[in-house]
Amino acid sequence: MQLTPTSRTQHRRLAERGSFDVELINAIVDEAMFCHVGFAVDGRTVVIPTIHARVDDQLYLHGAVANAMLKSLADAVDVCVTITIADGLVLARSAFHHSMNYRSVMVFGTAARVDDIDEKRRALDALVEHVVAGRGADARPPTESEMRKTLVVRLPINEASAKVRRGGPVDDEEDLSLDVWAGVVPCQITFGTPEPAPEVESAVPPYLDQYTRG
Amino acid sequence: MQLTPTSRTQHRRLAERGSFDVELINAIVDEAMFCHVGFAVDGRTVVIPTIHARVDDQLYLHGAVANAMLKSLADAVDVCVTITIADGLVLARSAFHHSMNYRSVMVFGTAARVDDIDEKRRALDALVEHVVAGRGADARPPTESEMRKTLVVRLPINEASAKVRRGGPVDDEEDLSLDVWAGVVPCQITFGTPEPAPEVESAVPPYLDQYTRG
Repeated sequence: MQLTPTSRTQHRRLAERGSFDVELINAIVDEAMFCHVGFAVDGRTVVIPTIHARVDDQLYLHGAVANAMLKSLADAVDVCVTITIADGLVLARSAFHHSMNYRSVMVFGTAARVDDIDEKRRALDALVEHVVAGRGADARPPTESEMRKTLVVRLPINEASAKVRRGGPVDDEEDLSLDVWAGVVPCQITFGTPEPAPEVESAVPPYLDQYTRG
Repeated sequence: MQLTPTSRTQHRRLAERGSFDVELINAIVDEAMFCHVGFAVDGRTVVIPTIHARVDDQLYLHGAVANAMLKSLADAVDVCVTITIADGLVLARSAFHHSMNYRSVMVFGTAARVDDIDEKRRALDALVEHVVAGRGADARPPTESEMRKTLVVRLPINEASAKVRRGGPVDDEEDLSLDVWAGVVPCQITFGTPEPAPEVESAVPPYLDQYTRG
């Protein structure tokens, strides 16, 4: 399925890197651990990093009700959520053609506060599951008081696009003979051995064995 | 040295995680491979991922002159640059206290186009060196034509703050006895074996041996 480009999501430059493919967009959203949310507070732009989760075609964000920034996010403001996964450093012979391999998604729209208690609970479950699949069945679920202290907002993933750069450096013809190493240094986020909290006696749960993303 | 808090950088919640320490701010800026830049285009927020570099107390960003978004960035607009390094997943007994270990920086200000040719060249060198220290001496430097095609903007790092979360989960007293594994899964960005471009015959340069960040 393809999303419809809008004036904001239409790729103007390097359009060959752009995509409106919902499967690709969802895969990037799901693999990335966190996102950056941009919105205006008192007319000035603020960008905050936060965990996100997707349920079908909705993106959920959450935070403390006491958080002034998140409160303005729930005020039906215009937002841009950008999600970026770095895949490699691209070293060209020329400084000019250095680049980065990445997969990114931008979602534009208006965030709305989730008031429905069932949807809110599903979103909070999804946020825990987004971080570690399987964790939701273990962790103590939110109490009513914790639910009240938590603000959840929803953003539809319908005005969105992906951008992907992959592959090696693209040098100019006349630079190919330069004696300069060129290529890609692949990168990814990796996870170390789980470190139990002081009083924990139970074994590391199976969903943390070989934990990885994407 | 400490920066002076402003209405935008003063931490309101979890202030114990906040810092105005220039050394800490610079260390996060230098370690992070790329940043997210938020600004308004036609009154609507856009957040783009891009490589950055620091020279002393200035943050530099660059892109193609033909890039409409970057052009508006150079138009002396109000921007927020957010830089985030993920250090670990924090799994608490309760879903509510799940968290993430991270180090982040927010820089607010007004971006300005760099017109001075020497400063522009220094900034472009710094951008290459930011990605791979030592690379600047190898890569073919930008030609005059490449310089003209590249837009460089500068943002002073004076209205800025850092936020750091480290350590294990902080569970409520009454949850400590629950039979739920709790702890931290550390994470970091790791780099794989450099993959040479097809025509490259020279050996992998020493600055890529054991390449790592931070």
